[in-house]
Amino acid sequence: MSHVSHLECSVCNRRHEAGKVQTLCECGGPLLVRYDLAKTKTTWNRESLAKAPPNMWRYSPLLPVQDPNHIVTLGEGLTPIMKADRLGAQIGASDLWVKDEGLNPTGSFKARGMASTVSMCLELGLSKIAVASAGNAGSALAAYAAACGIEAHIFVPRDVPRSNYIECRAYGAQVNLIDGLISDCGRIIAERKQAQGWFDISGLKEPYRIEGKKTMGFEIAEQFNWTLPGAILYPTGGGVGLIGIHKALLEMLELGWITGPLPRLVAVQASGCAPIVRAFQEGATRAQPWPNASTIAFGITVPSPLGDELMLAALAQTSGTAIAVDDAEILSDLNAYAQAEGLLLCPEGAACLSAVRRLAASGWLTGSESVVVLNTGAGIKYPDTIDARSLPVLPKGYAL
Amino acid sequence: MSHVSHLECSVCNRRHEAGKVQTLCECGGPLLVRYDLAKTKTTWNRESLAKAPPNMWRYSPLLPVQDPNHIVTLGEGLTPIMKADRLGAQIGASDLWVKDEGLNPTGSFKARGMASTVSMCLELGLSKIAVASAGNAGSALAAYAAACGIEAHIFVPRDVPRSNYIECRAYGAQVNLIDGLISDCGRIIAERKQAQGWFDISGLKEPYRIEGKKTMGFEIAEQFNWTLPGAILYPTGGGVGLIGIHKALLEMLELGWITGPLPRLVAVQASGCAPIVRAFQEGATRAQPWPNASTIAFGITVPSPLGDELMLAALAQTSGTAIAVDDAEILSDLNAYAQAEGLLLCPEGAACLSAVRRLAASGWLTGSESVVVLNTGAGIKYPDTIDARSLPVLPKGYAL
Repeated sequence: MSHVSHLECSVCNRRHEAGKVQTLCECGGPLLVRYDLAKTKTTWNRESLAKAPPNMWRYSPLLPVQDPNHIVTLGEGLTPIMKADRLGAQIGASDLWVKDEGLNPTGSFKARGMASTVSMCLELGLSKIAVASAGNAGSALAAYAAACGIEAHIFVPRDVPRSNYIECRAYGAQVNLIDGLISDCGRIIAERKQAQGWFDISGLKEPYRIEGKKTMGFEIAEQFNWTLPGAILYPTGGGVGLIGIHKALLEMLELGWITGPLPRLVAVQASGCAPIVRAFQEGATRAQPWPNASTIAFGITVPSPLGDELMLAALAQTSGTAIAVDDAEILSDLNAYAQAEGLLLCPEGAACLSAVRRLAASGWLTGSESVVVLNTGAGIKYPDTIDARSLPVLPKGYAL
Repeated sequence: MSHVSHLECSVCNRRHEAGKVQTLCECGGPLLVRYDLAKTKTTWNRESLAKAPPNMWRYSPLLPVQDPNHIVTLGEGLTPIMKADRLGAQIGASDLWVKDEGLNPTGSFKARGMASTVSMCLELGLSKIAVASAGNAGSALAAYAAACGIEAHIFVPRDVPRSNYIECRAYGAQVNLIDGLISDCGRIIAERKQAQGWFDISGLKEPYRIEGKKTMGFEIAEQFNWTLPGAILYPTGGGVGLIGIHKALLEMLELGWITGPLPRLVAVQASGCAPIVRAFQEGATRAQPWPNASTIAFGITVPSPLGDELMLAALAQTSGTAIAVDDAEILSDLNAYAQAEGLLLCPEGAACLSAVRRLAASGWLTGSESVVVLNTGAGIKYPDTIDARSLPVLPKGYAL
């Protein structure tokens, strides 16, 4: 099982004990889980994966859960990665791949982080969890909490797609719709959690969601047969997945499973909420809150992400970039992809295609390197975003 | 690749040539694909699967596509199968498993049949496909057709969930909403297909959808490590999946991959549309059309299925049964399952749980055998069926 050794502050590098409840470092920095990779090398390798389960727990030596009985799984991970030749030709990327995270339980990549975190909550004996969510994190938490009998308190902005809160409520979670943004949801949890006894798993406020999310990085390497793509584009809100993929790449480097150079990591945001893009362009190491955030891509409407420093470091260390795209481009590429490739992306995934289009046009992408786009959720969770028109009904006796 | 040898009429056993366009037999019987299983035994076995792709094409020697370049895949198959201890205890089944077909592309098991059929259409040079659908078959056809540039014409009843036709339209399919049932949709296609040049892939009107669907049977056996569950419950509309699972079981028997007795197959229908249940109870070999069909389980609202004879034979040959459940039970078990297990079933999948509950109470299930339920689609595609209530919106300054 897990080769976890300790936790480490991502800002001040202070060491913290694993196996007990931890939130942020005293310095305010997010904590990262560290493993005994030297030991891992001697007992587990790439070939071991041939017999591993077809889900994210195939990488369990590098996941934090100690007792397999605490694993709460709904079949998350090992999502398909598909070559998109037809759309790639349209947007100037001849070797374009889309990893479809919509095929996770509850229809999004959030399942990975919730599987690892809820499993750890079970292992640590926590019984009440709260999360601020743009929608999909809430659905995923509700599902995993239901699966193991933990109480879930979910705070989502009022503009979240209706199907999201129906889903949360069906799982028996306590759902609160807030007249505000995800930052308002986070603030309410922070104010209330001590009195209510909630463990707050929003953003990077605890160390375990990153661990589930990083399995996307392991899978991309395994699915590319341990060679790496030239660039990975990730729709960036809280950025936990971007940080996780970067962490996975560094762990695989240390294990000798891959060699450099690493893929250039690209943070894709919507022009209506682009704090990381602005900070990257200014050469800053931290981001400033984005005022009046608004985009159709709900999942990346995070005006003030806690992981800004880690994200900007991941972009810098991989010679990556950050880029913002407009809502109109997102919708256009969402439809173009569906018609060319037969997959309905979520708006956040489609934003990455718009980014590929721009980066290919500008020459930042050469057009010949392998490019991986993360489609973080199932498009069908957003029917009204995609198309609000109704269809005429034809009578039974209809003839064309 | 494929070990296909020929096609065979399921009614009169007449032999038909593979590798060319075929519909029904001259006698009206659906055609089944036959393989050279003796040859298969010598070149491919259960151990070969260790290196096979993590999707339904892992079984490609027993699928009909001859040229791998014709495979149109979106990552369908190898869906998770999960033990449901908490819900199982509630309904009297101590070894209950749910196979989550909602984690297929387009959110339903229909992806399997469309992957095989659309691939065969590509191999046979067909360029226009039509289907009558209760919703999910339409979405799946639209996606696979888009992925390979084939034209899709989809006829769905007006009551289909709105997200279904939004999805079809996004894929660029021609969608027609009909004021009637799936049988009316089928009739309209039959009347128009010759003039329009459409290949009709509704129900069992061509031999290849069964082949994709049967991979559910292969997977259940593989996921149970080649021992078999005692019963498999399948929500039954057109019944292609039930017939497919039975066909897979027989092929695996012949290959020596499994030994009998076979799992008892159970056809689950809604009491508002239960032609197979009525025929089974009457000991008939064919079913009569069900008048005024109506249930919240859209996917099994098929009043006059073409595969009635094959389904009833599958039930008889496996000592199975057929059972109808009410809409109120379906909704109640859908919610019970979500809260106990963290998975939002589709109404059709939930119907199977209601059936387990009834069959355990009656003693037909002993309570100790392994029972597998097929959840044929993602519950989130039916938000209004699950819960039409809205939530109050709390102000930004909200305090509990």
